[in-house]
Amino acid sequence: MNNVTRIAAIAVLAAVAGSAIAADCKSKFGPDDQIGNSNYITPEKTLAASKLITKGKAYRLGIETNRGTPAYPPRNYSVTVLQPGQVAGTTLGPTKLSYNDDIVMGWNGVGSQLDGFGHIGWDNVYFNCQKAADFAKVTGLTKFGIETVPAIATRGIVLDMAGLMNANPIKEGTAFNKADIEAAMKRQGVKSIEKGDVVLFYTGWIDLIGKDDKRYNSGEPGLGKEGAQYLASLGVAAVGADSWGLEVVPFEKDVGVFEVHQILIQQNGIYILENMNTEELVKDKVSEFFFTLGPSRLTGAVQAVINPIAIK
Amino acid sequence: MNNVTRIAAIAVLAAVAGSAIAADCKSKFGPDDQIGNSNYITPEKTLAASKLITKGKAYRLGIETNRGTPAYPPRNYSVTVLQPGQVAGTTLGPTKLSYNDDIVMGWNGVGSQLDGFGHIGWDNVYFNCQKAADFAKVTGLTKFGIETVPAIATRGIVLDMAGLMNANPIKEGTAFNKADIEAAMKRQGVKSIEKGDVVLFYTGWIDLIGKDDKRYNSGEPGLGKEGAQYLASLGVAAVGADSWGLEVVPFEKDVGVFEVHQILIQQNGIYILENMNTEELVKDKVSEFFFTLGPSRLTGAVQAVINPIAIK
Amino acid sequence: MNNVTRIAAIAVLAAVAGSAIAADCKSKFGPDDQIGNSNYITPEKTLAASKLITKGKAYRLGIETNRGTPAYPPRNYSVTVLQPGQVAGTTLGPTKLSYNDDIVMGWNGVGSQLDGFGHIGWDNVYFNCQKAADFAKVTGLTKFGIETVPAIATRGIVLDMAGLMNANPIKEGTAFNKADIEAAMKRQGVKSIEKGDVVLFYTGWIDLIGKDDKRYNSGEPGLGKEGAQYLASLGVAAVGADSWGLEVVPFEKDVGVFEVHQILIQQNGIYILENMNTEELVKDKVSEFFFTLGPSRLTGAVQAVINPIAIK
Amino acid sequence: MNNVTRIAAIAVLAAVAGSAIAADCKSKFGPDDQIGNSNYITPEKTLAASKLITKGKAYRLGIETNRGTPAYPPRNYSVTVLQPGQVAGTTLGPTKLSYNDDIVMGWNGVGSQLDGFGHIGWDNVYFNCQKAADFAKVTGLTKFGIETVPAIATRGIVLDMAGLMNANPIKEGTAFNKADIEAAMKRQGVKSIEKGDVVLFYTGWIDLIGKDDKRYNSGEPGLGKEGAQYLASLGVAAVGADSWGLEVVPFEKDVGVFEVHQILIQQNGIYILENMNTEELVKDKVSEFFFTLGPSRLTGAVQAVINPIAIK
Repeated sequence: MNNVTRIAAIAVLAAVAGSAIAADCKSKFGPDDQIGNSNYITPEKTLAASKLITKGKAYRLGIETNRGTPAYPPRNYSVTVLQPGQVAGTTLGPTKLSYNDDIVMGWNGVGSQLDGFGHIGWDNVYFNCQKAADFAKVTGLTKFGIETVPAIATRGIVLDMAGLMNANPIKEGTAFNKADIEAAMKRQGVKSIEKGDVVLFYTGWIDLIGKDDKRYNSGEPGLGKEGAQYLASLGVAAVGADSWGLEVVPFEKDVGVFEVHQILIQQNGIYILENMNTEELVKDKVSEFFFTLGPSRLTGAVQAVINPIAIK
Repeated sequence: MNNVTRIAAIAVLAAVAGSAIAADCKSKFGPDDQIGNSNYITPEKTLAASKLITKGKAYRLGIETNRGTPAYPPRNYSVTVLQPGQVAGTTLGPTKLSYNDDIVMGWNGVGSQLDGFGHIGWDNVYFNCQKAADFAKVTGLTKFGIETVPAIATRGIVLDMAGLMNANPIKEGTAFNKADIEAAMKRQGVKSIEKGDVVLFYTGWIDLIGKDDKRYNSGEPGLGKEGAQYLASLGVAAVGADSWGLEVVPFEKDVGVFEVHQILIQQNGIYILENMNTEELVKDKVSEFFFTLGPSRLTGAVQAVINPIAIK
Repeated sequence: MNNVTRIAAIAVLAAVAGSAIAADCKSKFGPDDQIGNSNYITPEKTLAASKLITKGKAYRLGIETNRGTPAYPPRNYSVTVLQPGQVAGTTLGPTKLSYNDDIVMGWNGVGSQLDGFGHIGWDNVYFNCQKAADFAKVTGLTKFGIETVPAIATRGIVLDMAGLMNANPIKEGTAFNKADIEAAMKRQGVKSIEKGDVVLFYTGWIDLIGKDDKRYNSGEPGLGKEGAQYLASLGVAAVGADSWGLEVVPFEKDVGVFEVHQILIQQNGIYILENMNTEELVKDKVSEFFFTLGPSRLTGAVQAVINPIAIK
Repeated sequence: MNNVTRIAAIAVLAAVAGSAIAADCKSKFGPDDQIGNSNYITPEKTLAASKLITKGKAYRLGIETNRGTPAYPPRNYSVTVLQPGQVAGTTLGPTKLSYNDDIVMGWNGVGSQLDGFGHIGWDNVYFNCQKAADFAKVTGLTKFGIETVPAIATRGIVLDMAGLMNANPIKEGTAFNKADIEAAMKRQGVKSIEKGDVVLFYTGWIDLIGKDDKRYNSGEPGLGKEGAQYLASLGVAAVGADSWGLEVVPFEKDVGVFEVHQILIQQNGIYILENMNTEELVKDKVSEFFFTLGPSRLTGAVQAVINPIAIK
């Protein structure tokens, strides 16, 4: 086989591999599906999950987002407050109206985030085998934009990995795989993880924010490849953690760059939730709760700054 | 009385008037309170409200926010999608990672919004008698920033004013006052509005978006002054509507510029929720429901783009 | 030849074609060159051009840039004015300092612009055969950023195409090629166009701004492919016009998408200047003048909003 | 005199003092004037200044502006580069067009700046006695916006204060007043400073950027109050320095907060130029030169990022 033929053959093989990946990216819910496993969050699921509310205590899972929040470079975020039309202390009308308004500049991927299905792809092919060139427009995604995320009200589960591993924070590079997940479930008495559930890992990593931002950003404990495949096999709707990227960094041996993201988002239609603060839930020894999330519906946005409400 | 003395006397009278307003602005919940009537959303309140979930159907109340959303000038909002580090189709690593990221530029007050207590004041004095100069910093409010909004999980009530008034949309300038609110409650069988409730008006006004943005923005039916005082007397935590500003515009006779905003926010510590899409709730003949809201916790932000989840 | 071999052969041919283009992109000024024909603007050139100042009249060639400026979608630009730290009319210090500050949000490519050499490429290869993946970083170009543009002080020539063609504005789609350029020169008594000159076309097209923005944006008279090659052969440092894109739109038959941009910028290292307002120069019957330009040195910027000063 | 009367009397005195200041703010060039001493830059002035070009060497006086540029908090600036419509390496048309575009977010007051007359006021009264409430609109100044700055082409003078004071950089807090200015002129053989001139101080302070940003930002040598009054008496059009704020910081004893800014801008209609890099001019022993400046004409902008061109 001469060189030209050999290069061509490799190209064909690559194309075949590409096809295999394409097959993996198909949604179980049909060619028009944009919400993946959130299809499992049926009214029955929501109703059943609502029974987890036994005390009425509500928790904010979002952390604050601001100029100082450590973020994946060059992401940043700023709010600027101003008083339009009120120069020199001017007020408006007989009741002397004063008001503040605010400007935002920055990137959605700062602080507590939901990664939509347009965030992560495999060779420019995204969930449900959608090609980036077809939907990733500069003025916003025409598929998978955050406005498509449904109302999420389902069962939430927090797995206390810090408690399990007796380390707080758990060391960066520590992977959570099937055995770890099952051990945490057993320790907490969580009988099963089911279709449409939201699973959150507690690692203590988030406490580094403001104390050691550099360390925070340069690694994290988190979900491993086998663990991601396991959770995907159970049909969860979303997976999150109290860390900037959910998945273990440095990546496991022989695992690609953010391949856990690819497995969850691109191959399985599972949202990723980052910087989810579950400390108070863990302190209160809550394992299962009612999880609600309505991300701001910015049309075509790739990600959302979020603040889910957990209720026990 | 000579001129100098007369001017001084007027200044004193003004100061007295100012004190009267100051007295009104005090929080019932103490000098350090930043959340006003949301203090009424106790675990007991949340637990009771959760019993309203009988079908498990979840509704998104947020509309989409984008370049085309009509907004109070000069507010606007844009999302821009880009592919950092992927020039010329470059992918990352052995699993060919591709990703989209997004930049936001604009104003928080676009689309579905929560008005925090730092939004509206009376002569530069805000809720709980806080002076703007003390907390309205250019880099963010140091009190009343959106990060202070608690986890909201409480009873929601939608009042179908369009059905009551047999007009859809209701004409701009139509005020909803005590009698109207009570008539709507009676018509729907809502027995009472209670402390910590969230009350939303359905007017049909929101359907003008995209059809007649100019009319949409230049007026609206909505809450009148007496109606605001009535709801405040009942201790509601938040009031909203399917319109850009909740309150009736043009303003009622002898009512100040956005005085309903002042009554709710500055004098009573009640959040205002704007552009709340309750159409599907009304179609489903839902009057009472479980209302959850976790606004993105942008530190120091005046307002938030929101998407509350209503569950029946 | 089987399919695999044929595909491979095509790939090889494409690579060869790529090499040909690559050869065209090489700078005459060496592998490290980032400023192209501006190398011709030597002190001797500047000194000679300064002798064109005979009256001392200075002209602004920049138009205004703001929220209303028609621009290539989705580009826009806004300035927002605020008064940091001066809530409620507060002033600073014994001399009661007040101040305004301003925020910018938008895209550099709005209004009067300089297109740097990082703006336009050919199959992701840019001027001096630089590959986009090597220098087009998300945080700014690492080559060809606007900060690299030298101090430009040289001879400027305005060619009154509207006068020549007796049409104002000249109709969109009208191409200026070698014969037109020479006719304009002859009509105005311009003896030659030389190395390091800046050539500006006057078409009257810019007068449509604010009158018919839609027409303004959807086409333009301008430089044709042969005209671009002609000017490049003369060694000009920059070419501009009183239109949004300099080159004729719709493109000439058999000419690529913005191929004139490619010829000037990518193959010849010639800056493009857009929305250059030369009306007053033409009214004053000025053909040659001293041209100075110092674009704001935003590191890594692709383009610059500019306002060159022409002096007669 | 009782308290009320005493307070009233003080208010009256303050009003009188205010009137005195108001008188100072009037422009010599009439009630409609927006450009102050730049009125002195007549064609005769420009023509005469152009004779200073004897070598043809052109200098950029602007420094770079980017994410790392030290700036007055909370000012910052960012450029973000993206490739619209080119996802997955897509090119446009038969000639495979590729292009980069760029987004800006930030504040105009970063890096090399021109302070317009809308930047600095005295108790909310600005140059030519314009009241902020009348022209400082949130969408841009309606007077004194940067679009009003005329084409500036005049005589530039650089005074080597570092050489005079034998210190590089000169220590923060060192004031330049009349005697210092005259000593520098004498040392360099500058016979006079005249109407319409631009005067720049060289202090070496700018070399701290990137080396000691904290020190750079927390003080500076610079123009004192008497020195500002002296330059104003000579009718200069603009004054600048190689420092972030031109004027000496800490302020001189009994001098108000940025009072030198007030004297130059508010009382005398003199532009201030900041972060002007004159090091190369000083190295080349240039004292007088042709100065040209065309700031980007952002409508209603308070300040401009600039890059004047000096030519010897």
